[in-house]
Amino acid sequence: MREVAVIGVGIHKWGELWDLSLRDMHALATSRAIADAGIDHIDSLYVGCMSSGLFTAQEHLASLLADNAGLLPVPATRVESACASGGLAFRLGWMEVASGLSDIVLVSGVEKMTDVTGEEATFALATAADTEYEGYQGATFPGLYAMMARAHMERYGTTLRQMAAVAVKSHANGALNPDAQYPFTVSLDGVLNSTMVADPLRLLNCSPITDGAAAVILAPAEWARANLKKRPLVVIKGSGHATDTIALHSRKDLTWLEATEIAGQKAYQMAGVGPSDIDFAEVHDCFSIAEIMVTEALGFFEPGQGGPAAEAGQTARDGAKPINTSGGLKSKGHPVGATGVAQIIEVARQLWGEAGGRQLSKARRGLAQNMGGTGGSALVHILERKD
Amino acid sequence: MREVAVIGVGIHKWGELWDLSLRDMHALATSRAIADAGIDHIDSLYVGCMSSGLFTAQEHLASLLADNAGLLPVPATRVESACASGGLAFRLGWMEVASGLSDIVLVSGVEKMTDVTGEEATFALATAADTEYEGYQGATFPGLYAMMARAHMERYGTTLRQMAAVAVKSHANGALNPDAQYPFTVSLDGVLNSTMVADPLRLLNCSPITDGAAAVILAPAEWARANLKKRPLVVIKGSGHATDTIALHSRKDLTWLEATEIAGQKAYQMAGVGPSDIDFAEVHDCFSIAEIMVTEALGFFEPGQGGPAAEAGQTARDGAKPINTSGGLKSKGHPVGATGVAQIIEVARQLWGEAGGRQLSKARRGLAQNMGGTGGSALVHILERKD
Repeated sequence: MREVAVIGVGIHKWGELWDLSLRDMHALATSRAIADAGIDHIDSLYVGCMSSGLFTAQEHLASLLADNAGLLPVPATRVESACASGGLAFRLGWMEVASGLSDIVLVSGVEKMTDVTGEEATFALATAADTEYEGYQGATFPGLYAMMARAHMERYGTTLRQMAAVAVKSHANGALNPDAQYPFTVSLDGVLNSTMVADPLRLLNCSPITDGAAAVILAPAEWARANLKKRPLVVIKGSGHATDTIALHSRKDLTWLEATEIAGQKAYQMAGVGPSDIDFAEVHDCFSIAEIMVTEALGFFEPGQGGPAAEAGQTARDGAKPINTSGGLKSKGHPVGATGVAQIIEVARQLWGEAGGRQLSKARRGLAQNMGGTGGSALVHILERKD
Repeated sequence: MREVAVIGVGIHKWGELWDLSLRDMHALATSRAIADAGIDHIDSLYVGCMSSGLFTAQEHLASLLADNAGLLPVPATRVESACASGGLAFRLGWMEVASGLSDIVLVSGVEKMTDVTGEEATFALATAADTEYEGYQGATFPGLYAMMARAHMERYGTTLRQMAAVAVKSHANGALNPDAQYPFTVSLDGVLNSTMVADPLRLLNCSPITDGAAAVILAPAEWARANLKKRPLVVIKGSGHATDTIALHSRKDLTWLEATEIAGQKAYQMAGVGPSDIDFAEVHDCFSIAEIMVTEALGFFEPGQGGPAAEAGQTARDGAKPINTSGGLKSKGHPVGATGVAQIIEVARQLWGEAGGRQLSKARRGLAQNMGGTGGSALVHILERKD
């Protein structure tokens, strides 16, 4: 299989966007990615979206979006893996270019979440859990992650202050991201005293409901090296994808994200690297506890050490392992289908040296981890700059 | 890219299945496919499903189904392209094996459509059209295809009897298919006098609402040739995928299925064959007029000659170009996500010589065409028996 490069990215300011429809946001992100890459055609489109059916009564999404972006009759594929839909779309785009079937592939993610009521949005999101065994019993995602947080606190002594430190760090990064939904800082006390959502998770431990789209362009690395000169080459070195039971009660261990661990191991193996070789990462912090658990499952920290590491500043931009320099889902926003693609954008920008005020001094190899539900699906990608 | 073989298939009796949930049907079809192939592991799963969100309030579908089929932590991907979701899943499964990323891939399709009211099902299906420009104006699929039928009648003189002949032929085939939802024959007069749904389409011109699943197993042809002896080798020779505007009013020509034409041309080109080299085909007859238009777009008949060819018996099992020997969507049923996978099953069974009472005498090369909405997406695959 061929080596694949990320050659262009496109995103827009996320938020509660009453003046942009799902197709508008998608066209905005994809047209920016196409312009950024400086290409004149697309061979294929993959779009990640969790639930355009429940949020906007629109399926048959990839054809609609290909049409609206002026790309017909290009093959267009919509994939769904709940909040990991964007990461999954990226994996399939990578596979199509790597296989040689296509050369230039557009990968996008999109979700329009605010055209429904808060209750309807909660219902739609709950379909990422096991509807028959969790959803219909009243479980929602704040409640499910609250149980995971309680279990982690019980087993490892993880504290509310450690979880709050995750949110404080992410907002400090997001304040430097002009596309973030909530680009402001928050204090430790602010998090600890914010409205209770599902004990022990307070409002500022939770990622928001967001409208947004994101897009990246992939091409064969060899072609990119020969034809594109404006930037260092950024290639995909590893891709991992794994699943776990989506019903939380079926897990062997509530404090461990097995699909993330396995997807990470696959990506590390393909890339020929280990956790210590990763300079920085974008991970799926839908709730503060999720970021802590993901950094453990990826091997960045020992089990139970994710919380202390966050509190000690190790995941800050000037720490040993910067996490979520974009602001993460917490500050940047979480349009569920777009999140996995936006993670790739942040990793690519850091590797290109185009991350503005949040640019890391050392950014040669970055990782993106995207997951669905309470971790029932996970995608891990490792990107590397080639000088 | 490697040549890929179909090595096992699984399906069950389709219908209004109150005693089988979505996950039950999927487990039934996939376990039968795994047993049929005689394999002991799966590397990856692709599942096609149009709208489990609107029909059953369940997203995150591929992980759920992988779990329920005992396949965790296998990479599992759900794809959606309205009624072409199954054909699209098949294409991605083919791509993954062909690329060398995986060896044994399970491709499934599923839709649970009868747990909602008829009105809710019509609403869910209408999301395969352009919701903002068609659905919210009241357009439903019988209405949209009725307009296509009227346009075809006006331009080419296609008659009600020709459209009825399509349904009569498909039911004659489906009566021999034990898995069909409606395994009985219908008469020309019976079709012509059935309840009007959307003028000129009557009830027996329309495919039904169906619960069902279908699954196939793919593997490298070289491996299958060396290791599997019970059947002739059946390989995928061509795959084509194309899109068109999903809004009918945006088409240049209401009487022509451009995405199907383009997908067909790509598949023919990859296979190195033309329409006359195809012995038989399964095509997307969601309405009688659709089968007529598809047989024209695939080049089996000249534009406007699809209706006369059907009436003259050319598409019957003993005709020059047998179409929908399975009974088609009309008689076999149309669980929208499963349909594209079931088409592959019928083609494989004909090529293996395992089609029972509906076995064709000449079946060396078969084609499957699956489309979404009014033709806004189309998948064409060409399968061949290698003796």
